Amino acid sequence: MYRIGLDIGGTGIQMGIVNEKGQILARSGIETRLDIPFSEQVALMADCCKNMIKEGGYSLLDIVSIGAGVPGIGNQKTGEVVFCTNLGWHHVPFREEFRKHIDKPVFVDNDATVAGLAESVAGVSAGTASSVFITLGTGIGSGIVIGGRVWSGFHGTGSELGHMILETDGILCTCGNHGCVERYCSATAIIRMARDLLQRHPESMILDMCGGDPSKINARMVIDASREGDPVGEKVFRRFIRYLSQTIANVMNFLDPEVVVLGGGVSRAGSYLLDAVRTTVPDYILYKDLPMSRIELAKLGPDAGIIGAAMLS
Amino acid sequence: MYRIGLDIGGTGIQMGIVNEKGQILARSGIETRLDIPFSEQVALMADCCKNMIKEGGYSLLDIVSIGAGVPGIGNQKTGEVVFCTNLGWHHVPFREEFRKHIDKPVFVDNDATVAGLAESVAGVSAGTASSVFITLGTGIGSGIVIGGRVWSGFHGTGSELGHMILETDGILCTCGNHGCVERYCSATAIIRMARDLLQRHPESMILDMCGGDPSKINARMVIDASREGDPVGEKVFRRFIRYLSQTIANVMNFLDPEVVVLGGGVSRAGSYLLDAVRTTVPDYILYKDLPMSRIELAKLGPDAGIIGAAMLS
Repeated sequence: MYRIGLDIGGTGIQMGIVNEKGQILARSGIETRLDIPFSEQVALMADCCKNMIKEGGYSLLDIVSIGAGVPGIGNQKTGEVVFCTNLGWHHVPFREEFRKHIDKPVFVDNDATVAGLAESVAGVSAGTASSVFITLGTGIGSGIVIGGRVWSGFHGTGSELGHMILETDGILCTCGNHGCVERYCSATAIIRMARDLLQRHPESMILDMCGGDPSKINARMVIDASREGDPVGEKVFRRFIRYLSQTIANVMNFLDPEVVVLGGGVSRAGSYLLDAVRTTVPDYILYKDLPMSRIELAKLGPDAGIIGAAMLS
Repeated sequence: MYRIGLDIGGTGIQMGIVNEKGQILARSGIETRLDIPFSEQVALMADCCKNMIKEGGYSLLDIVSIGAGVPGIGNQKTGEVVFCTNLGWHHVPFREEFRKHIDKPVFVDNDATVAGLAESVAGVSAGTASSVFITLGTGIGSGIVIGGRVWSGFHGTGSELGHMILETDGILCTCGNHGCVERYCSATAIIRMARDLLQRHPESMILDMCGGDPSKINARMVIDASREGDPVGEKVFRRFIRYLSQTIANVMNFLDPEVVVLGGGVSRAGSYLLDAVRTTVPDYILYKDLPMSRIELAKLGPDAGIIGAAMLS
């Protein structure tokens, strides 16, 4: 009894055959082609699946279902991808199209939701029935699990933590609103804050790290500089931790899950990030004397996309 | 098959016998006594229950369960009231104590959560499986229903929408944090904004309405003044609607329930409030082209406390 998970991204599509424990037994992948129509994109994915099954020594009969995580919105009931801007998909019948090639149950959901599901079944939040997964990358995504099941909302438009307002009338967001979480807690926010401060502090080691070119700064450089005691790095990191802790506390004050899991590129800062967040979040929790959600780092890494997609049902 | 619901407040305790349709068949109530110990408070409540049953012509055998809504936190598993500041209760064994008097299943939960449950079973959100209920009063409470069940969090400390941060480094809140939703979207916020503006605009009709004494202003006066075209009233109402709409949009972007229900004293402004919110919320929704949560006014009014408490299980 195996399931196939597809992690569909803007540049590549990774896939794997996953067993019931959430282990990936075979892998494959293709580049994302944006120059061909939807039906051909799906045909290429299905071909890749079939080859993976064959080359791994499996049979189509072993496969129970196929799930896909997309950077967008999936309709769990109809199997439609409602939209997925990176791939140019708007209201495409993913399930229907995919089943023309491989006639198995096909599921689709948001990529952060899927990664959260993976962590809650085979990762750091395994064994818990309620968790909120937060991806800290270029943007902010999230995945909610309640009662052991994914909750993406009644219309499938939920778990958009990155576009909740943290500062009314705050910084303009790519979505058109002001003050969204994503503008304060993402890698993009870290880079912006560092660039701003560098203008007044060209002595910061960050300028060396980026070869004197602020356009080359990434979040890792800023966090590494903070670790080394660089004042600009430390100041940006402290601000970032404060905003992120307020956001995590918002999640806890509202949903109070058993675990909050941090994933995505920025979470690779590891215990340096985790310790800072764990120390700061309690400042913003309403019930300071009562037990509160655990905060953990994701442990499945990039594989969470494949594993969680395979677990969709 | 009837259930008893207790709505335990800081000044009074209302109770009722509720049938399966959520109708209240008999009522009673007592004053909240703060001068006696917990065990005696519970004994008085239980006595009142027994009298209500008897006077209504019912028998204890007709009663399936007893539920209580408290302005605080209940532990659904243990039946303990974790805390309820108004009544001076901290970690009191409510279920255990109550069953000494009436030996039936006893449940306890937060009052806003209970009101949300009532609306979702017998009120405006009846027939939906996911809803968020928001009480707009002196403070802000909320109740979350997902998958047809109340969700108060893993530790029972969730659905504290009023203490999510809407403005980082914003106005100081009674909870000690800054920028909590409650400081922007409550009756208290409306009053504060009106008083601030009145200092520069003593010509506002609000000053007449409160008899020239700004300490007597209430939210209703400000909203009534706005309806009548008073510039101070209109400005405060517009700001309030903006903050409230951002908060509702935050709920939708994160949880995407089928319905958001507005209750509490401020919701008595009726369609004047509802129309303004329905017009403004879409500005802050991420997926503007997709179907979004309905926004409705609560319809059970103060009875929601008794009805929802009776529905706890």
